[in-house]
Amino acid sequence: MSHTTLDDYQDRYAARIHGMAASEIRALFAVASRPEVVSLAGGNPYTAALPMDELGDMFTRLLAEDGARALLYCPGQGDAALREQICGVMADVGIDASAGASPDDVVVTVGAQQGLDLLARVFLDPGDIVLAEGPTYVGALGVFQAAQARVRHVAMDDEGLIPRALEQAIAECPAPPKFLYTVPTYQNPTGVTLSGERRVEVLEICERHGLLVVEDDPYGMLSFDGHRPRPLRAMRSEGVFYVGTFSKIFAAGLRVGWVLAPPAVRDKLVLASEAAVLCPSALTQAAATRYLTTMAWREQVKAFSALYCERRDAMLSAMDDYLPSAMTWTRPGGGLFVWADLPEGLDSKAMLPKALAKRVAYVPGTGFYADGTGRGQMRLNFSFPTAERIREGVRRLAGVIESAGELRDTFAP
Amino acid sequence: MSHTTLDDYQDRYAARIHGMAASEIRALFAVASRPEVVSLAGGNPYTAALPMDELGDMFTRLLAEDGARALLYCPGQGDAALREQICGVMADVGIDASAGASPDDVVVTVGAQQGLDLLARVFLDPGDIVLAEGPTYVGALGVFQAAQARVRHVAMDDEGLIPRALEQAIAECPAPPKFLYTVPTYQNPTGVTLSGERRVEVLEICERHGLLVVEDDPYGMLSFDGHRPRPLRAMRSEGVFYVGTFSKIFAAGLRVGWVLAPPAVRDKLVLASEAAVLCPSALTQAAATRYLTTMAWREQVKAFSALYCERRDAMLSAMDDYLPSAMTWTRPGGGLFVWADLPEGLDSKAMLPKALAKRVAYVPGTGFYADGTGRGQMRLNFSFPTAERIREGVRRLAGVIESAGELRDTFAP
Repeated sequence: MSHTTLDDYQDRYAARIHGMAASEIRALFAVASRPEVVSLAGGNPYTAALPMDELGDMFTRLLAEDGARALLYCPGQGDAALREQICGVMADVGIDASAGASPDDVVVTVGAQQGLDLLARVFLDPGDIVLAEGPTYVGALGVFQAAQARVRHVAMDDEGLIPRALEQAIAECPAPPKFLYTVPTYQNPTGVTLSGERRVEVLEICERHGLLVVEDDPYGMLSFDGHRPRPLRAMRSEGVFYVGTFSKIFAAGLRVGWVLAPPAVRDKLVLASEAAVLCPSALTQAAATRYLTTMAWREQVKAFSALYCERRDAMLSAMDDYLPSAMTWTRPGGGLFVWADLPEGLDSKAMLPKALAKRVAYVPGTGFYADGTGRGQMRLNFSFPTAERIREGVRRLAGVIESAGELRDTFAP
Repeated sequence: MSHTTLDDYQDRYAARIHGMAASEIRALFAVASRPEVVSLAGGNPYTAALPMDELGDMFTRLLAEDGARALLYCPGQGDAALREQICGVMADVGIDASAGASPDDVVVTVGAQQGLDLLARVFLDPGDIVLAEGPTYVGALGVFQAAQARVRHVAMDDEGLIPRALEQAIAECPAPPKFLYTVPTYQNPTGVTLSGERRVEVLEICERHGLLVVEDDPYGMLSFDGHRPRPLRAMRSEGVFYVGTFSKIFAAGLRVGWVLAPPAVRDKLVLASEAAVLCPSALTQAAATRYLTTMAWREQVKAFSALYCERRDAMLSAMDDYLPSAMTWTRPGGGLFVWADLPEGLDSKAMLPKALAKRVAYVPGTGFYADGTGRGQMRLNFSFPTAERIREGVRRLAGVIESAGELRDTFAP
């Protein structure tokens, strides 16, 4: 090998690497995290609301009482005590023993992201087709891309996935799709929730076509009206893999999530996880277990939800006040995000540098599609900035949109 | 889908799943961890030696001063402060700025295991060939198997990889191998260290053949005589990817490791990691950073090394005292493991159930080969059990081997 050129290794990479590119969200991080920028671009929970002193005491006790174990390796499936606790968390949203949920069928993962990645490793060969909402979670697109799978989007409206569109997408697939990936509750990026009636319809369609379902449910507990939609997995145990996480109900920095899957699939997920990371952190698993058993975690989820509800209200009222009447947006009943449609002819991707210059950040809609659509949309986050910052950010954004509209009018007939 | 049979999903798995099987080490965990069994089978560092009270205080301060950030997501490449500290750690073994090491080129991973997995994702297509020591680290075999790569073993002796065997293995490959995977220092499973002269030769051979090197170095700092062999990466910057971890110098339960790679490869590793886990735990990264900056970590490494040296001595002297003269074994200068050759005709895999019945566990040699060899060998761990337990374990093992030898003599001519 001679001296380093731009990329000495170019001819050596695996095929999967050629399709991988940095997501538009990641590329934004550096600029959007400057303090003078109001970032509506993130997806961060408001961890500052956690009781840091109590957590410090919890870690001190954990290390004193169980440190030697918590600082070691643990089984690849994850800690047994945590898997028990996870079943308690799932029971709160209706996935209980009567729905066939058991600690034996839980695989602890490095955040929900690893849950998606393991499911992809277990089920996806290059060229396989995955169905997903359009738009969908950007991190899931990264997983499917790394697995060299093809994503076909299924249209959604204010009630979530459109059953007729799902039927049509299945019919149009050149080969049977491997699974439907869906975030049915307070979806990322739209904030939309699949209605109860449609849940029944979607499950019926999937069952009829033998289509597996990967249900990703990071936001289901962050309800603003106290009503928590019943997960698909609570309605059907076969053919539905449930992916959960502590990222939004406790702390994203732990990287503790899980997959609930039937025994045969669970065994494969564990093997895949052992190859990928040996095991998740025993320390953060022990922390999650103690948090659930010794602290008022349900109260904390209520506190997060109340805070995000207040911030959603701030965002929606600022949008009502400042944004042009030609725009529409979702009104989420929970979660972290609002999804907005720009006035016709405006391009969220092209507009972003101008927005950053005006010190406001968002994520262009294109990040949430595998096929380049989404230029007319944007995702706005309300969980992390304060209500005041949200209002100021939307005001700045309105100015950017107005300028872009004027530019469009000048050059269009 | 109808009722659950043994595996309803059998026809749906990806091709990579068919080659994956539970490692022999993992399958042992349940039995070997019973208190009445002396387990010489593990690979656990002795975390009970860590100062738990001080670590508790460290976490309390971390959460009070930096909790909101440490409980959030972080960049996919890993925390910048930690990457800086990692360069300090690597400088201790000779990989410093003059060797081209920079925090920009460090990718923080979920333990060294994820470092290996990311390198496999970036470089390996199904059918690709990887060269590795024979025997080699079982977790690396799991990674290569998941990547659907083929492993060819290169013979080693008491001075590590045999250069002539490496030349021959390269010549015999039907296609150019993608890389050489090597644990040159205090290797797992043999405890053997590649000699200084051979390091030069191996690098020369790899350079001449354009063969990349993945250098896995979890044990390099655990030296029993104060002399730390110079990593390959310290001797050559191009074409050598260095994989490090805090698992043995601090705590395995953090799951914090890293890869040092040139910019083009680093970018691909980050993309692959974002798809796999989004980011490693910000909390355990912050803990590692504080540990390195505020605690006497070098003293702790010395304490670990002194303890393991004492336990290695206990193991070697018990082996001298109890094991049959027809056996040979390695005399490691550091690390966690001794590798033993059984008397001719004995089978470590077949003997294991008898050993467990006699309340002693080891790992059969077959776990460390991709090709089924290794029945005449076993790996013994001395880092986790106390010296007394080690002596008792070796005594029990000697009885098992003696019985197996008698059985062999009865049925052989």
